[in-house]
Amino acid sequence: MKTDYKKIAPQKLTFCSDYMAGAHPKVMEALNETNLMNTAGYGTDPISEHARNRIREACKAPEAEIFFLAGGTQTNATVITALLQPYQGVLSSADGHISVHEAGAVEHNGHKVLVLPFEEGKISAGSIRRYCEHYREDESWDHIVMPGMVYVTHPTEYGTLYSRREMEEIRKACDEFGLKLYLDGARLAYALASPQNDLTLADIARLCDAFYIGGTKCGALFGEAVVFPKPGTVPHFFMITKLMGALLAKGRIAGIQFDALFTDGLYEEIGRSAVEAAGQIQDAMEEKGYELLFRSPTNQIFLIMDDDEMNDLLGKVDFEYWDKYTDDSTVVRFVTSWSTTEEDVEKLISLL
Amino acid sequence: MKTDYKKIAPQKLTFCSDYMAGAHPKVMEALNETNLMNTAGYGTDPISEHARNRIREACKAPEAEIFFLAGGTQTNATVITALLQPYQGVLSSADGHISVHEAGAVEHNGHKVLVLPFEEGKISAGSIRRYCEHYREDESWDHIVMPGMVYVTHPTEYGTLYSRREMEEIRKACDEFGLKLYLDGARLAYALASPQNDLTLADIARLCDAFYIGGTKCGALFGEAVVFPKPGTVPHFFMITKLMGALLAKGRIAGIQFDALFTDGLYEEIGRSAVEAAGQIQDAMEEKGYELLFRSPTNQIFLIMDDDEMNDLLGKVDFEYWDKYTDDSTVVRFVTSWSTTEEDVEKLISLL
Amino acid sequence: MKTDYKKIAPQKLTFCSDYMAGAHPKVMEALNETNLMNTAGYGTDPISEHARNRIREACKAPEAEIFFLAGGTQTNATVITALLQPYQGVLSSADGHISVHEAGAVEHNGHKVLVLPFEEGKISAGSIRRYCEHYREDESWDHIVMPGMVYVTHPTEYGTLYSRREMEEIRKACDEFGLKLYLDGARLAYALASPQNDLTLADIARLCDAFYIGGTKCGALFGEAVVFPKPGTVPHFFMITKLMGALLAKGRIAGIQFDALFTDGLYEEIGRSAVEAAGQIQDAMEEKGYELLFRSPTNQIFLIMDDDEMNDLLGKVDFEYWDKYTDDSTVVRFVTSWSTTEEDVEKLISLL
Amino acid sequence: MKTDYKKIAPQKLTFCSDYMAGAHPKVMEALNETNLMNTAGYGTDPISEHARNRIREACKAPEAEIFFLAGGTQTNATVITALLQPYQGVLSSADGHISVHEAGAVEHNGHKVLVLPFEEGKISAGSIRRYCEHYREDESWDHIVMPGMVYVTHPTEYGTLYSRREMEEIRKACDEFGLKLYLDGARLAYALASPQNDLTLADIARLCDAFYIGGTKCGALFGEAVVFPKPGTVPHFFMITKLMGALLAKGRIAGIQFDALFTDGLYEEIGRSAVEAAGQIQDAMEEKGYELLFRSPTNQIFLIMDDDEMNDLLGKVDFEYWDKYTDDSTVVRFVTSWSTTEEDVEKLISLL
Repeated sequence: MKTDYKKIAPQKLTFCSDYMAGAHPKVMEALNETNLMNTAGYGTDPISEHARNRIREACKAPEAEIFFLAGGTQTNATVITALLQPYQGVLSSADGHISVHEAGAVEHNGHKVLVLPFEEGKISAGSIRRYCEHYREDESWDHIVMPGMVYVTHPTEYGTLYSRREMEEIRKACDEFGLKLYLDGARLAYALASPQNDLTLADIARLCDAFYIGGTKCGALFGEAVVFPKPGTVPHFFMITKLMGALLAKGRIAGIQFDALFTDGLYEEIGRSAVEAAGQIQDAMEEKGYELLFRSPTNQIFLIMDDDEMNDLLGKVDFEYWDKYTDDSTVVRFVTSWSTTEEDVEKLISLL
Repeated sequence: MKTDYKKIAPQKLTFCSDYMAGAHPKVMEALNETNLMNTAGYGTDPISEHARNRIREACKAPEAEIFFLAGGTQTNATVITALLQPYQGVLSSADGHISVHEAGAVEHNGHKVLVLPFEEGKISAGSIRRYCEHYREDESWDHIVMPGMVYVTHPTEYGTLYSRREMEEIRKACDEFGLKLYLDGARLAYALASPQNDLTLADIARLCDAFYIGGTKCGALFGEAVVFPKPGTVPHFFMITKLMGALLAKGRIAGIQFDALFTDGLYEEIGRSAVEAAGQIQDAMEEKGYELLFRSPTNQIFLIMDDDEMNDLLGKVDFEYWDKYTDDSTVVRFVTSWSTTEEDVEKLISLL
Repeated sequence: MKTDYKKIAPQKLTFCSDYMAGAHPKVMEALNETNLMNTAGYGTDPISEHARNRIREACKAPEAEIFFLAGGTQTNATVITALLQPYQGVLSSADGHISVHEAGAVEHNGHKVLVLPFEEGKISAGSIRRYCEHYREDESWDHIVMPGMVYVTHPTEYGTLYSRREMEEIRKACDEFGLKLYLDGARLAYALASPQNDLTLADIARLCDAFYIGGTKCGALFGEAVVFPKPGTVPHFFMITKLMGALLAKGRIAGIQFDALFTDGLYEEIGRSAVEAAGQIQDAMEEKGYELLFRSPTNQIFLIMDDDEMNDLLGKVDFEYWDKYTDDSTVVRFVTSWSTTEEDVEKLISLL
Repeated sequence: MKTDYKKIAPQKLTFCSDYMAGAHPKVMEALNETNLMNTAGYGTDPISEHARNRIREACKAPEAEIFFLAGGTQTNATVITALLQPYQGVLSSADGHISVHEAGAVEHNGHKVLVLPFEEGKISAGSIRRYCEHYREDESWDHIVMPGMVYVTHPTEYGTLYSRREMEEIRKACDEFGLKLYLDGARLAYALASPQNDLTLADIARLCDAFYIGGTKCGALFGEAVVFPKPGTVPHFFMITKLMGALLAKGRIAGIQFDALFTDGLYEEIGRSAVEAAGQIQDAMEEKGYELLFRSPTNQIFLIMDDDEMNDLLGKVDFEYWDKYTDDSTVVRFVTSWSTTEEDVEKLISLL
């Protein structure tokens, strides 16, 4: 008997995360339209190639090598494994996703995550430089994991943004110390759409050795597009995805979704609506006297709430515990997404 | 501008594989219906749990632990890593998928594939027993990788089937030597639907420590359902999927698909139509005087063709090179699937 | 032509480390005496077993399983790999040897080193408890590496000592959170011989799941004795040493050395002479107005020196740079060992 | 109380292996002579460098990079890990030591051993070529582990020898398919000393990307010298040895031994006496009507014995079971070494 989904999964107003709904309707439309077509497997089909061309154009990187993988942790582990030598580690913000929230996937593949201090989720060229200088000066450097690459997220875990200038500085530091630069764009749509962002896809492609354009959190059912702007950066990356269990048999399912996401500016449009919603909510919060941890430029809002107030609100809307703030207050997180409606925003504001 | 998929991916009659089309229409229907619902991530949502219950029922394994992963190689590597100790390897047919076609994913995770002889893709209890006895008798056994589990596929790489009796014998051999038993059901629908099959899902759940029910090749966009019939078989398997990069953020996307596949017998229905098509095609091949490598009970047909004939046919329909047979003949493979239509079958037959 | 070792390796007064000379003369005597005997390989010989019995007795652990490995990093990586599940990491002082100075050997084998704050090289039961409580309370705990064991060194990287009471507290914290406890005794002789030490070998065997008794830095040519006080702690550890490349073909060479080290109290005697030498040197340093970083209870001395003074002294005696202290002063390390003579001590004092 | 080694390890005539005694007396002499000298650690000392120069000269490879490791399995795993990309495997005789007797050390480090057929332990250029051609022609080659290097042993597991011409052919096949060539010389002394050998150290250095000169089985207490004839073959191999747990703190202990082994032709002298002994024994065996599996050119003798005869002889002398031959006969192995005396040989012959 057919499942009554509405019944088994009753719906409640939610701002927990940006991976709670399915795919953007235009993405679903493309999947539906192509559903009964036959194409070759493993991403070798013409639709995936079409999607790659759309991305190459958006990145102004006509020779870029592009691969579609299923999810973020998988993508990070695969790219990092591909870029590092056995004796190298990856520099990351101490609160970076790979450092904290990927269950040790990088280490499982044999590499150490080397942590840097951060401010609002961001690391700096200066801290990279200091780490590497200290490493070089250590008389026992060859008994210590060598920094081989830098991992940044944009937006960061805190929804903050690197400026173009900051990324250029980071690139410069990387060049000084022979480091690869990799950007995790799990929520990239929300960065690109932020009025405060000045780091374009073309900038990212120009500055990074590798990056990924997030699909899972930005309107796809699943899928991330790994981009190597310079061809030949990683020989046989296809085989590496296979041995990492990251190669999709029906590769086109990811390709179709990215084709739709990069049609007529949908990817940024998705980001824009979410960032605007987050702006409206933050405006309302500030008006109503709430204290933001900081004003977020993207789709993640960090709010400091009295515990009583928080528990009360949790009865009416879902959001996420982030961290203890004081003994009787807490930092909580509200996340908007492409699927957040005007109605959702209004309801939330009315509950505050 | 919206992509004209028909134009960029012109369609041709094809029997190359069972992962060339999208998802069964009822699977797409469920994805469309639930698309804008919000649910928790990582497979913790009620729809995924509903799907698990449907699978538990189909397997007559009410306490089974079930996880949805993205693809076959990933699933094999994750389950094998979870079941083995560092000093153990996995016994497999020498032509097993993990042994030959997964780019060394098992070895990448630290384990050796120990190969057994096979007949039409099948290994036997006898060969397992001989391997283990030989291992035990070796004076240097503790310098040699210890067999820790057995890997079988059903149907096999050759589309052949284990009988219930053969699997019971294999289970017995496993018990004698302390081996875990794992069944790769990438194409399980096509086995379950074969008139020659007497190994039910409930048998598999009774006999195996772990198995997976294939989605990717059996009507889903992607996704495999890992089943541990006995709870507690692998503590913290969830974490292992995470560190292997095999945990889907929107876990429900796989859950919804399996919910649809296990509604009203869809999974076996999918298999049945493909197996019937393969039967019709084999009948026609035999009638027309072609030589089958053997009569296949499932959806993969292995045909011996003169090279000239083969090259001629390849101009009209796509199928796969399998192996050289003699100097001027070749074994080729035709695969049907849930998406093979009556019309496809007729066209192929008319071309033979 | 025979090498003139004295000529190619001119000798200078040195306090750089405790692995700069060969083996204690009594160890060499045992190696010489047994040299032409034939015995079975891989540590299965009767001399290695004799040595194990001597160690069992010294540890008051009659059922202990004992293995002889070649060096410290190898030993740490092997024991940690053997004790952890794939989803677990090892808690260590942030300056622990495995965290900093083993080139990522733990990560190469798939595990994360989880760092704790330290004081004079020591971690505390409190910090273990806080880490684990924080882990348990995290809503995303199953996306985060699970602490599976605690790694301590005794003496620490700073030559400091855990008291019996501190270790009992640490054991208690481990029990509360299901953690294994492992002690790295690379310099254990110098701890056991310290007047300030109250943690005996029997205490260590009672409190730890595994530990190693250092040979390389304590009078052997090479070799570390891994002790699992409770039999069955790690099934097939022998095989794990083999696959880690840590199994010695002529296992007895390590066994003989440990047999000598545990004959007539040689192991503690070796420690005692070095600790006494370090005491004399520290007395002299204090008398002469030097500032110790702290008074060391074992064989490593940490001294704060003006850079000019330091550079001057380096012309006459070798010692090690440790860390910058202020802009024009440095922390340096002097290490004594079993091979430090009265004459060496006097010379050094005269140079201060 | 000092151990009475003679008492706890009673001696019996033995031909079980070549790692049953300590070190050649001249090696022990060098260790004794240098014992109380102080030198820097990790193989950076002048004695190790002196030994490297002796080896460079013997190999006619003045720029070779040389590292001293502790044992064979460790050396194989470290060199193979260093030479391969993540998606590559190592071609080896199906009975190669890495394939069968190293407990999966290569797989533990992430690589598959790809097996080739062998004759008397030897693989051929032809079989390498066939494997690689088959790989290149496979349409799914990028789903299959790529052969990245060839592993040979000289002498082989069966004590047989590659001729210079055979090795040149193998090198040629490697060049055709972009493979690295690595030679495991665990018993190299016994090859170099064989009258049938025409493959010199200089040939090996000219033909291989890497090889190791065995110490453990050729007169050292332990130790293998890894040689990369061309500098820069593996960047940062030192760090790789460290993270593999293969770096010796007192590196000079291995260096001193190799210095002695390469003084005044000792290494070949060691081999010569053993090969001569094996020759005498084989002469006697043939004279007395025994059936050799084949006439061995080095120090391992393979004899076919009736089981009754074998059991009888085992009461008087130790040798090794190798393999079942027929229902009532067995292949057994006798091994001579540098420590086999004239008296041992005579005793054995008298017992036959």
